Amino acid sequence: MKIIIVGASGTMGKYLTSAFNKEHEVITAASKGCEISVDITATRSIEEMYKKVGGFDALISTAGPTYVGPWSKLSDREFRQGVEGKMMGQINLVLIGQDFIRPKGSFTLITGALSHDPQRNFANASAANGAVEGFVRAAAIELEYGIRINAVSPTVIEASPQYFPYFPGDIPVTMQQLEFGFRKSVFGPGTGQIIRL
Amino acid sequence: MKIIIVGASGTMGKYLTSAFNKEHEVITAASKGCEISVDITATRSIEEMYKKVGGFDALISTAGPTYVGPWSKLSDREFRQGVEGKMMGQINLVLIGQDFIRPKGSFTLITGALSHDPQRNFANASAANGAVEGFVRAAAIELEYGIRINAVSPTVIEASPQYFPYFPGDIPVTMQQLEFGFRKSVFGPGTGQIIRL
Repeated sequence: MKIIIVGASGTMGKYLTSAFNKEHEVITAASKGCEISVDITATRSIEEMYKKVGGFDALISTAGPTYVGPWSKLSDREFRQGVEGKMMGQINLVLIGQDFIRPKGSFTLITGALSHDPQRNFANASAANGAVEGFVRAAAIELEYGIRINAVSPTVIEASPQYFPYFPGDIPVTMQQLEFGFRKSVFGPGTGQIIRL
Repeated sequence: MKIIIVGASGTMGKYLTSAFNKEHEVITAASKGCEISVDITATRSIEEMYKKVGGFDALISTAGPTYVGPWSKLSDREFRQGVEGKMMGQINLVLIGQDFIRPKGSFTLITGALSHDPQRNFANASAANGAVEGFVRAAAIELEYGIRINAVSPTVIEASPQYFPYFPGDIPVTMQQLEFGFRKSVFGPGTGQIIRL
């Protein structure tokens, strides 16, 4: 299976690349440091990525820039980080990618527990996650040719201890749990699912 | 109680205005045809509205422009209708309005069942609704001075029969149910709630 991982230079993306490239052809993409350079906030850059890659069977996205910081500093301007990044960036990966993906292929996006379990400093991510989850459910009934779409929704992950203080009481998701969430989406039959870890 | 209704020229807004203005001071706002003209896609216009109104106790929004139409025509461009309208328009009503609302005031936004129960042609609304719902949960833990925030989430409403064919099997929400949803948010104690009708 030919799998594109967008966000492959990040903590989650690196782990998933090493987990999947033993058995599959993995194409790594990120803003920098990967086989393919892609700026997911620019539709033209997304199109160029897909044209370079050609036909593929699965797209995994772990790319989710958002504004993290005090509510008192959160205005329309800061909010755009999540709107353009984690929200429209991922949505455009699907809207554009549906013309390049092979029949019965799958899209797997990243959201997170903040959509339903908020924490201080992360309102932008709560909104972006909620948007992506609503989109995933809607896209699942619209996509044709057996193409599936799901989202993986972790809470804080064990490999990012710098975030632990922001998620009091949340048991960190292990990297293996994260991998299995993506496995369920990519290799399972489900569509329109939010896979909570 | 002084209540601003944004979207007061629409089907829901008109009904809520007539329901609430018997017992409360209602200020109507919309892009046109109301006491206050406001373009919720422009932060400056939102600021001007709040400056004109002065202190208030509750803001109700029934303003939710989104792209409705075939998935095959849905690209980044069409998606922006819901991003700027129902999503960022309503989010900015809160981010800006928190500096004008009185202590213990409330914000009540409009979302809709499409966030979790999608229908064809409405992927943009599914995403916008999901974003607003995630934002409402997060804002509830951030807002100070006892200010509350909730969302009312109807399915298709009885006063809009032109939409019935798009929501097969959905029992339309009556206008009284809609009114009671907003009453629960404005006059009840809850915050961070998505009030599903």
